[in-house]
Amino acid sequence: MTTANQVLSEVEYDVVGKRPVRPDGVDKVTGRAQYGADLNLTGLLQGRVLRSPHAHARIRSVDTSKAEALDGVRAVITAADLPFASMSKDELGGDYNRFKFLSDNFLASNKALYRGHAIAAVAADNAHIAEAALALIEVDYEVLEPVIDVRAAMQDGAPLLHDDLVHTSAMGEVSEKPSNVASYMKFEKGDAAAGFAQANVIVEREFTTASVHQGYIEPHNATAHWRADGQINVWCSTQGAFVVRANTADVLRVDVSDVRVTPMEIGGGFGGKVSFYLEPVAALLSSKAGAPVKVLMSRTEVFEGSGPAPGSWMRVKMGANRAGKITAAEIELAFEAGAYPGSPVMQGATCAFACYELENGAVEGYDVMVNKPKTSAYRAPGSPQAAFGVEQVVDEVAQKLGVDPVEFRLNNAVTEGSRKVEGPVFQKIGLVECLEAAQNHDHYRTPLSGPNRGRGIAAGFWMNRGFHSSVNMTVNPDGTVNLIEGSVDIGGSRASIAQQAAETLGIGYDEIKPQVVDTDSIGFTMVTGGSRTTFATGWAAILASEDIKTQMVERAASIWDVPAEDVEYDSGVISHKSEELSFTFKELARQLYTTGGGITGTASLDPTGEGNSFGVHVVDVEVDPDTGKTEILRYTAIQDAGKAVHPSYVEGQIQGGAVQGIGWALNEEYYFGNNGQMMNSSFLDYRMPTSLDLPMIDTVIVEVANPGHPYGVRGVGEVPIVPPLAAIANAVEQATGKRMTALPITPGSVLEAEWNGG
Amino acid sequence: MTTANQVLSEVEYDVVGKRPVRPDGVDKVTGRAQYGADLNLTGLLQGRVLRSPHAHARIRSVDTSKAEALDGVRAVITAADLPFASMSKDELGGDYNRFKFLSDNFLASNKALYRGHAIAAVAADNAHIAEAALALIEVDYEVLEPVIDVRAAMQDGAPLLHDDLVHTSAMGEVSEKPSNVASYMKFEKGDAAAGFAQANVIVEREFTTASVHQGYIEPHNATAHWRADGQINVWCSTQGAFVVRANTADVLRVDVSDVRVTPMEIGGGFGGKVSFYLEPVAALLSSKAGAPVKVLMSRTEVFEGSGPAPGSWMRVKMGANRAGKITAAEIELAFEAGAYPGSPVMQGATCAFACYELENGAVEGYDVMVNKPKTSAYRAPGSPQAAFGVEQVVDEVAQKLGVDPVEFRLNNAVTEGSRKVEGPVFQKIGLVECLEAAQNHDHYRTPLSGPNRGRGIAAGFWMNRGFHSSVNMTVNPDGTVNLIEGSVDIGGSRASIAQQAAETLGIGYDEIKPQVVDTDSIGFTMVTGGSRTTFATGWAAILASEDIKTQMVERAASIWDVPAEDVEYDSGVISHKSEELSFTFKELARQLYTTGGGITGTASLDPTGEGNSFGVHVVDVEVDPDTGKTEILRYTAIQDAGKAVHPSYVEGQIQGGAVQGIGWALNEEYYFGNNGQMMNSSFLDYRMPTSLDLPMIDTVIVEVANPGHPYGVRGVGEVPIVPPLAAIANAVEQATGKRMTALPITPGSVLEAEWNGG
Repeated sequence: MTTANQVLSEVEYDVVGKRPVRPDGVDKVTGRAQYGADLNLTGLLQGRVLRSPHAHARIRSVDTSKAEALDGVRAVITAADLPFASMSKDELGGDYNRFKFLSDNFLASNKALYRGHAIAAVAADNAHIAEAALALIEVDYEVLEPVIDVRAAMQDGAPLLHDDLVHTSAMGEVSEKPSNVASYMKFEKGDAAAGFAQANVIVEREFTTASVHQGYIEPHNATAHWRADGQINVWCSTQGAFVVRANTADVLRVDVSDVRVTPMEIGGGFGGKVSFYLEPVAALLSSKAGAPVKVLMSRTEVFEGSGPAPGSWMRVKMGANRAGKITAAEIELAFEAGAYPGSPVMQGATCAFACYELENGAVEGYDVMVNKPKTSAYRAPGSPQAAFGVEQVVDEVAQKLGVDPVEFRLNNAVTEGSRKVEGPVFQKIGLVECLEAAQNHDHYRTPLSGPNRGRGIAAGFWMNRGFHSSVNMTVNPDGTVNLIEGSVDIGGSRASIAQQAAETLGIGYDEIKPQVVDTDSIGFTMVTGGSRTTFATGWAAILASEDIKTQMVERAASIWDVPAEDVEYDSGVISHKSEELSFTFKELARQLYTTGGGITGTASLDPTGEGNSFGVHVVDVEVDPDTGKTEILRYTAIQDAGKAVHPSYVEGQIQGGAVQGIGWALNEEYYFGNNGQMMNSSFLDYRMPTSLDLPMIDTVIVEVANPGHPYGVRGVGEVPIVPPLAAIANAVEQATGKRMTALPITPGSVLEAEWNGG
Repeated sequence: MTTANQVLSEVEYDVVGKRPVRPDGVDKVTGRAQYGADLNLTGLLQGRVLRSPHAHARIRSVDTSKAEALDGVRAVITAADLPFASMSKDELGGDYNRFKFLSDNFLASNKALYRGHAIAAVAADNAHIAEAALALIEVDYEVLEPVIDVRAAMQDGAPLLHDDLVHTSAMGEVSEKPSNVASYMKFEKGDAAAGFAQANVIVEREFTTASVHQGYIEPHNATAHWRADGQINVWCSTQGAFVVRANTADVLRVDVSDVRVTPMEIGGGFGGKVSFYLEPVAALLSSKAGAPVKVLMSRTEVFEGSGPAPGSWMRVKMGANRAGKITAAEIELAFEAGAYPGSPVMQGATCAFACYELENGAVEGYDVMVNKPKTSAYRAPGSPQAAFGVEQVVDEVAQKLGVDPVEFRLNNAVTEGSRKVEGPVFQKIGLVECLEAAQNHDHYRTPLSGPNRGRGIAAGFWMNRGFHSSVNMTVNPDGTVNLIEGSVDIGGSRASIAQQAAETLGIGYDEIKPQVVDTDSIGFTMVTGGSRTTFATGWAAILASEDIKTQMVERAASIWDVPAEDVEYDSGVISHKSEELSFTFKELARQLYTTGGGITGTASLDPTGEGNSFGVHVVDVEVDPDTGKTEILRYTAIQDAGKAVHPSYVEGQIQGGAVQGIGWALNEEYYFGNNGQMMNSSFLDYRMPTSLDLPMIDTVIVEVANPGHPYGVRGVGEVPIVPPLAAIANAVEQATGKRMTALPITPGSVLEAEWNGG
């Protein structure tokens, strides 16, 4: 068995594609990196949040007087302190619901909609006093019946989270009466009924997945300093400082320019730190107390008060003919939004059949509110759930046709020019190359023997994002270049962006000094998420580097007193096209200050052309027939990276995503008591896989260059979490003959599942 | 008596010239502004410095073992820890002396050259332990005779600070034997001897001035975090983060890009925070301790261990004819450099006669080392001392000719085209306008009556500086603009630079959000000093604004699908030249993210064209005949600002400079004991004037636009400290008939001075 990771490269570069040392590595392993909780300001107060013990309750009143009277308490706030409390429905007009939901998730006004919902907050001289004060706040709740299951919430007569919320479908239809369904969508291509009529084999199944958490190591934290002149300084752990800026300004009704957000080092996010919970609370406390305030979450608060990935229900139906071609497919998805609208059901819908060439298809989606925390993004939001259903049905169809599952997928794989059910047409993509890499891989070619063992495969898709990024780069007199960016570095983007700058400038990686800065110091940059950062912020670095090159050429021309057209920049050397005149980058850098000034290159762009990403995973499992426990024997993850800028990071992303998918498949779930209480809100009880549970995850990086990026880069961060859920279920089916349609595939559920006769 | 400040404007603008609220005001008055001492990092250690009690001593040995053994001590360093200690003379070559002096002033290697000279430093868990540890460091000194007077230091046989230092004159001559004279310079124009021969009146006098301190409120401080990967983060109170970066890198022998300097809010500098003392020490302690270290100075350390303005000796000779024209002038200046070369004698030499049209002149200067701290810049470095001599001699010459002192100066004032003794030719300048404003001022036109009273006037000059500045500006979606700059804001530059940006963009001042950032985040920017910031960094903001305008025009053209040439930008509105199409700045700002990306404007420049600045001060005093105490009755300061961008700040600069000059004239001095010990190293004993000692300082801003700047700006920060010394001495002479040739003019010195028979 080879465990070596492989990179199948199309093109080689000098710096892009190499594996330099990460700039943040030493600081992180030595504990010196500064995270939000490390921040201390003079006069800093500690903030804590009171949370609802009930999953569903009307808030009759909140009495904070005893807490305010406690010695050392500097401020107590409730929803009454948010601007929303003093705004009328008329004043807000069509923006009323959006603004109420936004405000209420920071501090609940009339109802607590999930256990852990923030009700009030305290700032005090220290954390002990703050916690003591929380216990003195008296909340009069009218406890209501909760609904925590997506299907139950959709039924007539289900407890309503929002009494008067009607939904508008993607087609503009407004529902007749209030319900928990916040939105509905439907996409169709061809004629599904006709397609099914042509099928020789049809499989239809329902699936469910549980709520799971991203499980980032670092809890949410925020420090805010609302200065007397109205400027609000915020330091926090976030995937997108500009999003925190925009939403903090929105909920507090101030200008974005009144808010300055400094992103600290981040201990993981995986989408969960695109959402935020503490920043406006800390700001309001700071305003009231007249001092900076830091608010930290405990792990239990993270589980109960931040946004997990949605639990879901799905019905998948697929038909294929004897030639092994899919003739029709349809999926119905219902995703839990949590307490407020906004599940990623749209993304689930667009990813569901993205791997397959469909003549006839239909996709329906429901965004459904339940008494759980408002869901947040989690790595390829919506796609793993959809793939859990679709990739099992694909497997079963192939099984019934007696076709190898990789072969069947190759037979139906999308390629350049394929049109998706909801409309878009693929550019150059690498699904076929990934499937072929799987077919040719030692893992797939090595027969699996032994009892209770099975091999599963699954494919996965994520569209990737472009979005807005900005980079400024300044040349130092020693020839190094400071690169500042607004993209928080979660998975190595400082390195991957510096590499693209170095490659473009034709200088060494070590010469680029990347740094993530606050929202006042760099142009608008969207979140680190959507697998966009290396693609889009990298591209901004390329453009900023080109800007520097142009200026270096102009400067050399001015020093030599020749036309700029006669000067060229090649591989870090600026030289005259005909005469014997040249500068290395370092030589010219040294002269900048004395020949007209320093050089700063800048770029801000909103690129399209993000390349879609596909992955194919192969997994071998053994299921203990006595206990039902599934053990992963071997795991290989294959993925098209377009161009892996820093292959070690890409491998890390693939391995990390696969492991999170394995946890989602086998262990992880929010386990609820009868009244909607999460019963396992600690890392002891919420079981994530550790390295002891797993073999090494082998990776194969396929490189089908993305024509939409100068170095062919596609995003890589999200797709690896998509295939594992179904791949493992498919492997368990091979091992046990049991088709596992509900997650997680716990030992108990395996023992209880019915043999499907396969 | 009118006390209203006056502004004599040439041109009016929309924002430039107005008096908006300062961005840092509220934070500073409410105590929320973050200074270096406010910074706390996780695991922060406290550093303290051991200083020499002797003004001159050989260091035989330093034993730090007992200090190192003290519980809670994390690191002890001496000069042996600096790279200099392990470098040979051969290795350093011609750089040896420069590098030795640089290193030795941070931590003395072989000799302590002044009382307060840093010998060793300690980092400990808290300040008490650090201070206890200092007492455990054993230094074996061989105490040497000190020399603390500039004239004594120049004599043969004087104690030598540096045993083998010979000096090279400006003319390239090398002295025969080692001495305390570090350099010598001489400039001549015309034929001084011939000029004196034509004179009807000649006055020649010698003058001395004492060492004085800038007296900034905030002591020096530095926090450093030398990370395990070699990056050194520094936070400090400085006038120039890039200078700290360069010199820290130099003394520690690392790349500039290894050092990131974040300038904190600054509690005054006046030139004294161009120099720095603690940053490499904190960095070395951090490296040794493996944790961040903060080092603070006490007030006594500031007096004894930072750089005061030099004491000086001067001989001035001037001749004039009956027509009231100066026929010749010469000056010999000897300035104290302190322990290492580098007094501002060159600046004193170039400023000395800068106000006067001289056919024949000669200027000689000596840079002389004495056993005092290495001197640092102090507001118009060198010019106040020179003016103290020259402006008194001018006064006496006018007196002897029976000419009004303003009239005499007008008769001889430099104008556009005048050539200075050392060569440069003046561009458009405003000395004549300032003298005329004095002549026409209510103060000068109101006769001064009463016994023991006198009126003095004096002129002053400062060349002002250009130097390098960078600005980046980013447009926010709400139409505000973030402006980031590398210029530390000491006297209001955030406002004055934002005003120039707003004026150029044609939007409101409140729409610009200025911020000072660290050395990684902005292009190279020289110190806030030399009266350059509003001029040069303001200009960078103008260019960055122009860059934004160009991009806004291009964007509008792209949205309208018309050629950019057909679109114009006027007063914050982007419109088509002929068609009915237009955007306000705010409207277009809102659309940027969705029409191709955000916009960042950037500029980095090294401008020439800084306009020289002149001031004329008028002061009335009354001298108590019994005690000798001089009281200021009325004070008017007139100055050419070119264009006062924010007149309130300019008035503040003029008033502050005048008050510091008054302190220098009447109260302030380093008072030394016999062995070179400063005897008055506290604000109780080192007497600076307070508001109770002074009348309101009236100001007149004259605006003779500087043709070398888009809005006509000249620097204003330094020239107001130049005239007071001489103006007060001239007034005291009028009141008492005593020509005070030594500073400070204490009550005792007035009583002891001889009546000059005038």
